[in-house]
Amino acid sequence: MLIIGEKLNSTISRVREAIKSKDKNFIQGLARRQVEAGAEMLDVNTAMGVENEPADMEWLVRAVQEVVDVPLCIDSTNPEAIKRALQAHRGKAMVNSISLEKQRLEGILPLALEYGCSVVALTMDEKGIPDSSAERVGIAERLMEIAEKTNLNREDVYFDPLVLPLAVNDRNAVTFFESLAEIKQRLKARTISGLSNVSHSLPKRRLINRYFLTICMSLGMDAAILDPLDQQLMTAVMATNLLLNRDPMCRKYLKAYRAGSLVE
Amino acid sequence: MLIIGEKLNSTISRVREAIKSKDKNFIQGLARRQVEAGAEMLDVNTAMGVENEPADMEWLVRAVQEVVDVPLCIDSTNPEAIKRALQAHRGKAMVNSISLEKQRLEGILPLALEYGCSVVALTMDEKGIPDSSAERVGIAERLMEIAEKTNLNREDVYFDPLVLPLAVNDRNAVTFFESLAEIKQRLKARTISGLSNVSHSLPKRRLINRYFLTICMSLGMDAAILDPLDQQLMTAVMATNLLLNRDPMCRKYLKAYRAGSLVE
Repeated sequence: MLIIGEKLNSTISRVREAIKSKDKNFIQGLARRQVEAGAEMLDVNTAMGVENEPADMEWLVRAVQEVVDVPLCIDSTNPEAIKRALQAHRGKAMVNSISLEKQRLEGILPLALEYGCSVVALTMDEKGIPDSSAERVGIAERLMEIAEKTNLNREDVYFDPLVLPLAVNDRNAVTFFESLAEIKQRLKARTISGLSNVSHSLPKRRLINRYFLTICMSLGMDAAILDPLDQQLMTAVMATNLLLNRDPMCRKYLKAYRAGSLVE
Repeated sequence: MLIIGEKLNSTISRVREAIKSKDKNFIQGLARRQVEAGAEMLDVNTAMGVENEPADMEWLVRAVQEVVDVPLCIDSTNPEAIKRALQAHRGKAMVNSISLEKQRLEGILPLALEYGCSVVALTMDEKGIPDSSAERVGIAERLMEIAEKTNLNREDVYFDPLVLPLAVNDRNAVTFFESLAEIKQRLKARTISGLSNVSHSLPKRRLINRYFLTICMSLGMDAAILDPLDQQLMTAVMATNLLLNRDPMCRKYLKAYRAGSLVE
């Protein structure tokens, strides 16, 4: 499973300040620490409370790629910011995100094609996020048809079935799991998710997020946007990979144990 | 999921000593603590290093049921010990275990029928535990046919697909998950497992056991024999029930949080 670090996000106030003040040192430190902790890609977001999203995004992409050698996940709804990011980006980026919403499809999908990116595809349309897994899978199918028509590679589309908070509806995680399993089995497509929505407004959120991730991994989820600095979470990834036969001879697990980085 | 406390087991040296010396106080304390921690049934085992298994088993059953109001899981391969346990037992016991081995089928299944018990049915035969999930499910099917012929209720059979250590073979947990899923889907039968085999001879075993349990629960496992005094494990059960829509309005999770019993 591809691990995408979530920390370079302007919704986090300290990060927002650093983007505002162009505090390269802070940004680069946070980029390095995430990669050292196991992130294979970094999400970058400059949308919140910042005046010039396109300029900030370009600055952020350049600052991060000066110090780490991983591709970035360009997290924006602003086509101009995405374009500036992709122009500055080295390697194959991911664009986060398209959906069946007209504005996103027309504004963002062409950029992903032009720059040869992978994309996160949200299973929602103009009416929002459907309640049922069947409708979400239906949207994924339509998005896959569009992707194939436009010659976007199948394996460059990561569907996010959009988990909503359990505190709002007891069934929200199950609806997500059903959608994920169905997209994997029927569409044979790649899948992705963030972890934090599921636990919104519940106590001990990181605990819930961790077991959520284990279930997602057991269903074959291909990528996760998460906090790689959460050592208990990264330990969950190790243990789950071990259980799912994705750690030959238990080597990574034992190496992490010897390094003292398995945290119960 | 039915939680069966595993601690009253003569393979644990302190418990073995207490059985030998008929230390009722210790045994009853351990029984009480497991039930208070959430066990809905208690496994009892007197096989190891004790001279008279049938007499010890009868003593253990009586001692435990003097102080807790839960049924017991009679864990023995000795038909005489099982018989003495069932004669002494109040309520509906579980017998642990039958298999396709002739000795167990002929010696133990009739007792389960006579005393109206549920049974743990291991997916193994005279040749041992098959490598493939297909063969294990095949054994489960034959056991289910036998159970139905003898008028044992379908829902009184808990199949254990027998997890083997990951340290021996990387695929062992996956083979178990496949068998479990297939027994649930194709046979529509109940399933059960212990947690500790999977992590045998690896470091930080309780960590592995915990994520193993979460995956088992997501596959619909009906019962687990576990250590209810492991607070992190019981927290995993809470969080997983929450995610799988088995905790209406998040009530149990929030109650455990307020009681301070959620341990990350």
